Amino acid sequence: MSDEPYRLYYWPGLQGRGELVRLALEAASTPYVDVARLPESEGGGVAALMKLMRGGGPGLEPFAPPFLQSGELVIAQTANILQYLAPRHGLVPDDEASRLRANQLQLTIADLIAEAHDVHHPIASSLYYEDQKPEALRRSQYFVTERIPKYLGHLERVLERNGGRHFVGSALSYVDLSAFQILAGLDHSFPKAMQRIAASIPLLAAMRDRVAGVPSVAAYLASERRVPFNQKGIFRSYPELDVEPTP
Amino acid sequence: MSDEPYRLYYWPGLQGRGELVRLALEAASTPYVDVARLPESEGGGVAALMKLMRGGGPGLEPFAPPFLQSGELVIAQTANILQYLAPRHGLVPDDEASRLRANQLQLTIADLIAEAHDVHHPIASSLYYEDQKPEALRRSQYFVTERIPKYLGHLERVLERNGGRHFVGSALSYVDLSAFQILAGLDHSFPKAMQRIAASIPLLAAMRDRVAGVPSVAAYLASERRVPFNQKGIFRSYPELDVEPTP
Repeated sequence: MSDEPYRLYYWPGLQGRGELVRLALEAASTPYVDVARLPESEGGGVAALMKLMRGGGPGLEPFAPPFLQSGELVIAQTANILQYLAPRHGLVPDDEASRLRANQLQLTIADLIAEAHDVHHPIASSLYYEDQKPEALRRSQYFVTERIPKYLGHLERVLERNGGRHFVGSALSYVDLSAFQILAGLDHSFPKAMQRIAASIPLLAAMRDRVAGVPSVAAYLASERRVPFNQKGIFRSYPELDVEPTP
Repeated sequence: MSDEPYRLYYWPGLQGRGELVRLALEAASTPYVDVARLPESEGGGVAALMKLMRGGGPGLEPFAPPFLQSGELVIAQTANILQYLAPRHGLVPDDEASRLRANQLQLTIADLIAEAHDVHHPIASSLYYEDQKPEALRRSQYFVTERIPKYLGHLERVLERNGGRHFVGSALSYVDLSAFQILAGLDHSFPKAMQRIAASIPLLAAMRDRVAGVPSVAAYLASERRVPFNQKGIFRSYPELDVEPTP
């Protein structure tokens, strides 16, 4: 490991997938540079991000942000970054079974995030939401009535079978942090849908509140480093997509 | 590790994501039981798969197939399963940088697979293709003109920068096997689109042929264990989705 702080590269101005990495770094109180949020005059901005995306850094070029520079390594794909960081900062237990469990749950959370994004972008990421709104309205019905309950029901059961407080082992892990983020995001984007299933996910709700209360996480959430939810990220507020189920 | 052969659980009758695991097991000439393809009278069938999905096995219940039972472990999420298997069977180098590289590329391949699936299912997995065909036709335009070239262009550059023959290190890895599968699948589903970009991905095309010629892989592909591409899997043949780009 290098003595230099980690360098995180992610689109400035939105939470997105980068937020899962930020939460892990912040929970661990680890110094890092959020490169693209620095001015270009300090070597930051989207220009710095694009340079590495185009193969201008050491090692493998990333397909997409977020990516993390740690010494000579440039690591992309959110679950891959977290799997690298977590053992170095006490955010996952040491044994193989726990590592596999954490990665499995993280990849399931990644699948949910991709689906949540595609609710407002069912046709193409390169189009505006407004240019795919009829398809988004149709997709939202299935997301709200089928997918949210299926994913959160699964996560609630997993939590219950592990004692109810943590997804992996008996302490805070990166999976808990990512679960906090999707719960916060779904509450922001689909408040009515989340209200309808609130009674069936008590352990997730309690875990979300506990994570928000971890001192390092609470300090981060109250800081300017936490980008608010907005209409550029994955979890947006389009009330028309928070549909009532058809009877 | 247990002396029992691995038990792979995946939907019978289609390749799907399970095929990436099968290719790794077959390339390594490792004994395994493809559980759901056994008759129920021998403890197989979808019933055996559903039992573990509902939490009837040791450890963490999977969210979805494929999952692999190895002794007391039940491991889900394709990239997670491959990351578990590969070091045990010589399908990834030992060093951390290579493992991170392999997992990163595998997760990018997983993203492409999810997008390829959603071309024919842009609204909901629970609906038939025929019930979301207008949306599929629209999504296919972007997949064919933007996403296939973007993903395969990235993979071609990665291959070139690693010497042109392998994605990771200097020998066959599980990433090569998965790349073979997506190239075969895209050729099956989008032959016209693949013909249009053939000249720009010579290294991928050559790698695909080399993987198909690995003796253990060739024997598998010629066997009855290889389920043919069909209209239940991820890579289907809907010629109407293999659209010509609009000028």
